[in-house]
Amino acid sequence: MGSKSDLPIMSQTADVLKELEVPYEMTVISAHRTPERMMEFAKNAANNGFGVVVAGAGGAAHLPGMTASVTSLPVIGVPIKSSNSIDGWDSVLSILQMPAGVPVATVALNGGRNAGILAAQVIGASDDEVLARISAFKKALKTKVMNSLGEVESYGK
Amino acid sequence: MGSKSDLPIMSQTADVLKELEVPYEMTVISAHRTPERMMEFAKNAANNGFGVVVAGAGGAAHLPGMTASVTSLPVIGVPIKSSNSIDGWDSVLSILQMPAGVPVATVALNGGRNAGILAAQVIGASDDEVLARISAFKKALKTKVMNSLGEVESYGK
Amino acid sequence: MGSKSDLPIMSQTADVLKELEVPYEMTVISAHRTPERMMEFAKNAANNGFGVVVAGAGGAAHLPGMTASVTSLPVIGVPIKSSNSIDGWDSVLSILQMPAGVPVATVALNGGRNAGILAAQVIGASDDEVLARISAFKKALKTKVMNSLGEVESYGK
Amino acid sequence: MGSKSDLPIMSQTADVLKELEVPYEMTVISAHRTPERMMEFAKNAANNGFGVVVAGAGGAAHLPGMTASVTSLPVIGVPIKSSNSIDGWDSVLSILQMPAGVPVATVALNGGRNAGILAAQVIGASDDEVLARISAFKKALKTKVMNSLGEVESYGK
Amino acid sequence: MGSKSDLPIMSQTADVLKELEVPYEMTVISAHRTPERMMEFAKNAANNGFGVVVAGAGGAAHLPGMTASVTSLPVIGVPIKSSNSIDGWDSVLSILQMPAGVPVATVALNGGRNAGILAAQVIGASDDEVLARISAFKKALKTKVMNSLGEVESYGK
Amino acid sequence: MGSKSDLPIMSQTADVLKELEVPYEMTVISAHRTPERMMEFAKNAANNGFGVVVAGAGGAAHLPGMTASVTSLPVIGVPIKSSNSIDGWDSVLSILQMPAGVPVATVALNGGRNAGILAAQVIGASDDEVLARISAFKKALKTKVMNSLGEVESYGK
Amino acid sequence: MGSKSDLPIMSQTADVLKELEVPYEMTVISAHRTPERMMEFAKNAANNGFGVVVAGAGGAAHLPGMTASVTSLPVIGVPIKSSNSIDGWDSVLSILQMPAGVPVATVALNGGRNAGILAAQVIGASDDEVLARISAFKKALKTKVMNSLGEVESYGK
Amino acid sequence: MGSKSDLPIMSQTADVLKELEVPYEMTVISAHRTPERMMEFAKNAANNGFGVVVAGAGGAAHLPGMTASVTSLPVIGVPIKSSNSIDGWDSVLSILQMPAGVPVATVALNGGRNAGILAAQVIGASDDEVLARISAFKKALKTKVMNSLGEVESYGK
Repeated sequence: MGSKSDLPIMSQTADVLKELEVPYEMTVISAHRTPERMMEFAKNAANNGFGVVVAGAGGAAHLPGMTASVTSLPVIGVPIKSSNSIDGWDSVLSILQMPAGVPVATVALNGGRNAGILAAQVIGASDDEVLARISAFKKALKTKVMNSLGEVESYGK
Repeated sequence: MGSKSDLPIMSQTADVLKELEVPYEMTVISAHRTPERMMEFAKNAANNGFGVVVAGAGGAAHLPGMTASVTSLPVIGVPIKSSNSIDGWDSVLSILQMPAGVPVATVALNGGRNAGILAAQVIGASDDEVLARISAFKKALKTKVMNSLGEVESYGK
Repeated sequence: MGSKSDLPIMSQTADVLKELEVPYEMTVISAHRTPERMMEFAKNAANNGFGVVVAGAGGAAHLPGMTASVTSLPVIGVPIKSSNSIDGWDSVLSILQMPAGVPVATVALNGGRNAGILAAQVIGASDDEVLARISAFKKALKTKVMNSLGEVESYGK
Repeated sequence: MGSKSDLPIMSQTADVLKELEVPYEMTVISAHRTPERMMEFAKNAANNGFGVVVAGAGGAAHLPGMTASVTSLPVIGVPIKSSNSIDGWDSVLSILQMPAGVPVATVALNGGRNAGILAAQVIGASDDEVLARISAFKKALKTKVMNSLGEVESYGK
Repeated sequence: MGSKSDLPIMSQTADVLKELEVPYEMTVISAHRTPERMMEFAKNAANNGFGVVVAGAGGAAHLPGMTASVTSLPVIGVPIKSSNSIDGWDSVLSILQMPAGVPVATVALNGGRNAGILAAQVIGASDDEVLARISAFKKALKTKVMNSLGEVESYGK
Repeated sequence: MGSKSDLPIMSQTADVLKELEVPYEMTVISAHRTPERMMEFAKNAANNGFGVVVAGAGGAAHLPGMTASVTSLPVIGVPIKSSNSIDGWDSVLSILQMPAGVPVATVALNGGRNAGILAAQVIGASDDEVLARISAFKKALKTKVMNSLGEVESYGK
Repeated sequence: MGSKSDLPIMSQTADVLKELEVPYEMTVISAHRTPERMMEFAKNAANNGFGVVVAGAGGAAHLPGMTASVTSLPVIGVPIKSSNSIDGWDSVLSILQMPAGVPVATVALNGGRNAGILAAQVIGASDDEVLARISAFKKALKTKVMNSLGEVESYGK
Repeated sequence: MGSKSDLPIMSQTADVLKELEVPYEMTVISAHRTPERMMEFAKNAANNGFGVVVAGAGGAAHLPGMTASVTSLPVIGVPIKSSNSIDGWDSVLSILQMPAGVPVATVALNGGRNAGILAAQVIGASDDEVLARISAFKKALKTKVMNSLGEVESYGK
């Protein structure tokens, strides 16, 4: 993540990866305040055993795109609605609108949880156990919906 | 893709996958005109040997998100600026803003080429040969920039 | 509705239908977490005696459009401003901008009450009693305005 | 429609109603240039045998909402991207964002064709023959998609 | 104003007119809930001695434009950010983007005070006493700025 | 107007004022390139016999608001969609969103014609002959609509 | 700054200039309420020894651009999200979208702190001591990031 | 500039610097395709004798902000409306909305010419000859306006 202030969103990524038993590391790398640390991290990510990188940042969010410019690993970007953001549009567009040749897999605004699931899906593309855990995870989503029917269907009755 | 009219964008996905020697299949599946075909495709995608799905659509683009709701594979969404679009915002937001639990890896508006690269990166996360071809591809991007220096630096001289 | 969290808006639909004595059923059907339940519901809606479907959802809201893709009944869509929404634009555009061939009758952001009135109007198009109740309802709107005149006209006097 | 210049969009409404064998009348009623004609039309629409009203207009589009304020019939609004429009947003928001009590069933920008289908669906809610023609119409949409598969699937081969 | 809920904004219009000693009347006229009252008011406004009309409304705000369509008097429109508004854009665009032939003099979002000043300026265009009071009013604006210098200039000293 | 390039829009203001027999003068005053000329003009406008000022400009359009800051006359602002504009939003918001105390009567994007009508209405507020010409003008708008009915109503017949 | 209400943002400019030991003066100059004071200030700024001007304002923010139209010094503009702003877009676009010939160096919405740093950088372009303090300032930014690693990296462990 | 395709805009920067006799160098540095070249350039810019950096890029434009993260020199950013841009918003927001600590002096969309003038102003802040040339340049802007008066004032006469 680009700043400690992104932790409330990015911790959701960590939480869901833990839930899906996908090992991860989480740290702060600021594109604008620690650019060399970012370059270093990105250059070595594949060699250091990472299979996918999740980068979350707010405002003019350059961390996901710059990481993607250096590594050949897939990079998932999480737009974050920071204070002084223009309604989150700045972060969304800074991450999404990458030029041809350097994609960032962008998820919804503040979508820390979805970034974790997507990262697990990338790993799961070649790991049947992870894929099975994702399938189970999806079934749990359905169950939660079904459990809410009673309250809604009895409204006003 | 959601409609034959998306071919100029989605053929770029096919072209780059060919270039990166990643096998693929391309077809038309309309979320709104062939919903059952979509459900059928998504349900069987993993069993049919796909490792990742790329879905492109314009306007109220539901194909990427609905595919992601059924399959456990990673789904890459390509927003397309169709005629009568409101500047592409409709497609971007319909694909990007998925609820927690069901991510779509969204690329830039009309980013067919980037969707192909991202798909290759997902495959490359567990296939060193593909990863190597992506690294070579990135070097070629750099070379192309370096080759353009002469023309720009001599401007006005 | 797509989620139990939509109840504060969608209960307004139920309330106004009750007020207009139009029978209804209300439940939760998530396009993304229970896609097969959605397909099943939409396929059978006409046979199950529904005359019109009201579907409300937030974010990348696919429930209204997907329901409309399956049933031949008119579908009314209610954009809902959920948490992490980009100011409601995502839901509005995901519901409104349907491709030619598959309309969704979209109402205002958080317009649960208007969705109920519109549903009653659809029924009222072939049911003179309902139409008469809608006319009475409209007269009541006028009366409420007229009753507010005193307070406003005496301001500052 | 609010102006003769809206004919290229609103004629699509007429065309699809003809195709679906739903009788209709089409005329120009300008909210801003012929407000009394609008009031007169709306007041008498139900008595004159209309079951639903389709109103299309561009810019600050008041025709759909004002018609809905007078009649108890369902009113379908078609936002039209006129010259000097701010990308169509003006028309979309002027039609969609109606206050509680007075809904307009809004379709996509320039969605003349969808307005006609939706009008037919409203009529079809109490007319099984129209409903059957809509079902056939939806099947034809699917067929058209299936007929496009060949060209797309053979791309690049 | 279109609704009693607009009073906090529209009372600012009344207040400034009082301050500038321009006589006025204030009431509620809803375009959508009392359309005939609106037509009646607008038709008779000039004969009833009004020189200018100020109309404020939120959401799909049709009151200013519809009043302008009926009367030949200048109409000033006040966009109001109501609850469920899409950030005020709906009201701004519904009032501002009038078609050629029927202008509305639009002021800033929630600009009730400015609407009153503008109305006084219209009256002042042919009433030297009002014009003089507006000039004095503008001088007072300047004085207020000058009186704030001390606090700001001494900041941090 | 702020630049000669605004003439295609601002000449519409001149044309309609001529049509309504309201005398006017038209010139170029650039807020950013001739600020002192602007200050001079605005300071003397009332003394020079002007009753209302129409100011049109594109981009970061400061001419209308700055003129209004100096003169006590009503100022009408015309947002113009210039080249390199961000879809006209820059001009609209720069003119419309004036602070409390200094209103600008804003018309639609590229609304040169409406600015002229509004200016005539301000003059007409104290000049019955001008008011009568505006009323006739409005009737002509209606006639033009009525004359278009034939073509539209016979469509497809 | 354009108004005393901008002090919470503009005091950040003062604070950082103090921190970087760059002398400054801070005052209130309203483009719309004290236009002559603005003209006077801008005309004399270079002669009065200023090297750069920072101007912050909200809504239709004309202070930065008008100052830039008069002085030849570089002008830095700070968009401020005032009450009744349309999400800050009005201020951003009024300051940023200056016509060719008259630039304003615009910083982020509410970016008072960045305006101060940028002003110091302009001074630092010809003052090695200031440049050195900016380099030290940047190193401190990095240190602050590095000090936050512990808390983030230990999350959930 | 980030790509050779930006030359039509960025050459305007070069042209105006030439006109103002400020020496410059122009090249292509892509943040996403040549990130190390960018880091290298930015790190050495001050030592290589540059006083200010102008960086123009389209889409998710990271070049200006990343350059600013490495160098202590002032960085001027030029948003460019590239093909597949979402109306230029992506580039504007990616450049403008930098976090506190790392400013980019942003100019208008496609504002290559203004970037050059601003760069000259930065140099002129400590170089009286350049400042004098800028003052002359501003006078020429005024002359050009005054020369256009004849054509506009004689319109329709």
